Amino acid sequence: MAKIIGMEVLDVRFPTSKELDGSDAMNPDPDYSAAYVVLHADGGPDGYGLAFTIGRGNDVQAAAIRALAPHVVGRDVPEDAAALGDLSRTLVGDSQFRWLGPEKGVAHMAVGAIVNAAWDLAARRAGLPVWQFAARMTPEELVSLVDFRYLTDALTEAEALDILRRAEPGRAERAAQLEKHGYRAYSTSPGWLGYADAKLVRLAEQAVADGFEMIKLKVGGNLEDDVRRMKLARETVGPDIRIAVDANQRWDVSAAVTWMTALAPYDPYWIEEPTSPDDVLGHAAIAQALAPIKIATGEHVQNRVIFKQLLQANAISVLQLDAARVGGFNENLAILLLAAKFGIPVCPHAGGVGLCELVRHLSMFDFVAVSGTDADRSIEWVDHLHEHFTDPAVVERGRYLAPTAPGFSARMHDATLRRFRFPDGPEWTETASE
Amino acid sequence: MAKIIGMEVLDVRFPTSKELDGSDAMNPDPDYSAAYVVLHADGGPDGYGLAFTIGRGNDVQAAAIRALAPHVVGRDVPEDAAALGDLSRTLVGDSQFRWLGPEKGVAHMAVGAIVNAAWDLAARRAGLPVWQFAARMTPEELVSLVDFRYLTDALTEAEALDILRRAEPGRAERAAQLEKHGYRAYSTSPGWLGYADAKLVRLAEQAVADGFEMIKLKVGGNLEDDVRRMKLARETVGPDIRIAVDANQRWDVSAAVTWMTALAPYDPYWIEEPTSPDDVLGHAAIAQALAPIKIATGEHVQNRVIFKQLLQANAISVLQLDAARVGGFNENLAILLLAAKFGIPVCPHAGGVGLCELVRHLSMFDFVAVSGTDADRSIEWVDHLHEHFTDPAVVERGRYLAPTAPGFSARMHDATLRRFRFPDGPEWTETASE
Repeated sequence: MAKIIGMEVLDVRFPTSKELDGSDAMNPDPDYSAAYVVLHADGGPDGYGLAFTIGRGNDVQAAAIRALAPHVVGRDVPEDAAALGDLSRTLVGDSQFRWLGPEKGVAHMAVGAIVNAAWDLAARRAGLPVWQFAARMTPEELVSLVDFRYLTDALTEAEALDILRRAEPGRAERAAQLEKHGYRAYSTSPGWLGYADAKLVRLAEQAVADGFEMIKLKVGGNLEDDVRRMKLARETVGPDIRIAVDANQRWDVSAAVTWMTALAPYDPYWIEEPTSPDDVLGHAAIAQALAPIKIATGEHVQNRVIFKQLLQANAISVLQLDAARVGGFNENLAILLLAAKFGIPVCPHAGGVGLCELVRHLSMFDFVAVSGTDADRSIEWVDHLHEHFTDPAVVERGRYLAPTAPGFSARMHDATLRRFRFPDGPEWTETASE
Repeated sequence: MAKIIGMEVLDVRFPTSKELDGSDAMNPDPDYSAAYVVLHADGGPDGYGLAFTIGRGNDVQAAAIRALAPHVVGRDVPEDAAALGDLSRTLVGDSQFRWLGPEKGVAHMAVGAIVNAAWDLAARRAGLPVWQFAARMTPEELVSLVDFRYLTDALTEAEALDILRRAEPGRAERAAQLEKHGYRAYSTSPGWLGYADAKLVRLAEQAVADGFEMIKLKVGGNLEDDVRRMKLARETVGPDIRIAVDANQRWDVSAAVTWMTALAPYDPYWIEEPTSPDDVLGHAAIAQALAPIKIATGEHVQNRVIFKQLLQANAISVLQLDAARVGGFNENLAILLLAAKFGIPVCPHAGGVGLCELVRHLSMFDFVAVSGTDADRSIEWVDHLHEHFTDPAVVERGRYLAPTAPGFSARMHDATLRRFRFPDGPEWTETASE
């Protein structure tokens, strides 16, 4: 049996704050970063994963991943659901490390980066992209990957098995459909808060021309500006293109209601992250006040327990899972199953570093093997930083193409790792001496 | 103006797993640890704070504290509410670092350790213990310390001011009462899961003889064992001593209800941490099913937003704040104000490393300046590791004495820091070579 013989963790940062790409109401100057993990295997390919951060603290994230190395190095290379379930349980279940969360923040993202790297490794060895590797597992194997602790008041193992069995018959047809037509994307590129109006209009026109059916604007900085930008965007794209807005946690409950009421005349499709991602009851109150405007959240939702409650409380109508925030593929499977149980569409958060690359696997797997539908579902598309990945996400005519290369697509080019390594890569040492 | 000229962070670990002190259903073998921070000031005393962990990962916690040093070193030594509010806002508000939470887990505990060290520093310079230093601030100054973001649907600044003003008249009398009689404690020492029955009985008898009115047992390992231990404890202490039980997050909702129904004949006073600390709605369902047994949680509640919801949802009847889990004194003030608004008693979590030392300041400050009452309130007491602190918590006849030394009491002896420093202190190098 091949072994994992080493784990390497790199602090990689991109100076995105220079261009105000990624600027929003809570994150004015992010430097998109990755705590990047490589699992070295003896013989055969290595496995790649990452946690996404926005700059300072990426070293802390890297330290958290390194702290878990004793659970990983020396282990057999995972090849199946049993091994991938065992790894996840071991990492989440370290009773001392668990105190740092439990199952949240830096410690949990560290688990997620390693679990995803292990999926990458297993899928590479199987010669399949992760979405197909997972979609070939039986319902029983898939259920064995999930930690049902704290979920059973909303979703039992038996219910999960039912959901997966119901989706089993059409798997091959839906996989073929993805290979032919891809998966719907929406574009956030026009809407960053730091962009001038003319740039917003130009990028919104471009998005429509490129075939996107929805764009997204950042809001929450200044109400007057937001009304102007929203009106401009609506005039630019016309009534048939959906416009989502995203407040990045800027508001309290009453501010969310006031602000969105002012934007309502321009028909926002959803309001994303109106308030704290921890505030289930706050989201529920906002949802009730603003219906039929949809409420979306997820990129900062720390784990399956918060998602469970958001669904139980009718607090969200769109679930935005994130590939690198929670405990990796295994916990995202739990979240997809919860969404399927409650009949809520999943529209993953993407952008950042490598999130588009990773998350397309989750949506495509969901379509094939879990929810069995893509109705009202789309994956966020932000056209940043893809050039650094060896298997970059590709969007054509508003749709993500199905990835075909083996693995989970988180691997970066060696040249990128050398150039952007923090603080000693030339991108940073040259900037510092400017 | 004196400056903070340096920040030192130490990884200090105690090998408590050897004795099964601190063993419970989720934490079978903790090594109680502290990521310990010293703020060096130029002239006058230094400031001390800590984040508590249970072993592995304490290095990650230390790294997170170090990552915040640029916000601290070079700053004026804080002397008043304005400076302590500003420091807290700066640390919580770092827009890049915030991504690691937001306001939760390792990153947030790092903020808490530094904020508490700054309170220690300010109180030392004022020559007062923190509970008195804070209790001399005006209601306006206290309100200025609080971050009301995400709270205003439950507690506005005006309501907080009202609460503090109502408590103003009796401050001096209540402070005098604390100096004379101290503050009620309860004892967890008898109930660790790893203890044999005979040890449980002996320690329970001792607790009653020592004047405690409540003891606490750990549960959640095995139902039959728990029923036997609970029956034994009840027979030992008689009907008039309260017995709380603590499941340390072991259960799902239905398991919590089944298990506690089996223990109900022995009159448990509260069930603590029945399920995930993230599960507001789960706690609410358990509370409804188990009334009149009280529901308590808090040691792992990540921030004020979760506490707000636990109160809004009638999910807890006892709030167990923790001195070192959230963003330090400032956020704990927000939590005390929330509890006062909802009329829920605060019984802080303690034990660990230094938590008894720190938290007595919070309860005493609450009694003097916030809730104005100690009805149904008590502070956990665990008689471990106090010998390592320069101003150790002292409990006599079941009551915490009021601390009189200046500061927040988190300072450890230099000999302790040398001996227990991980991994190079002699306690660890000698153990390794045994």
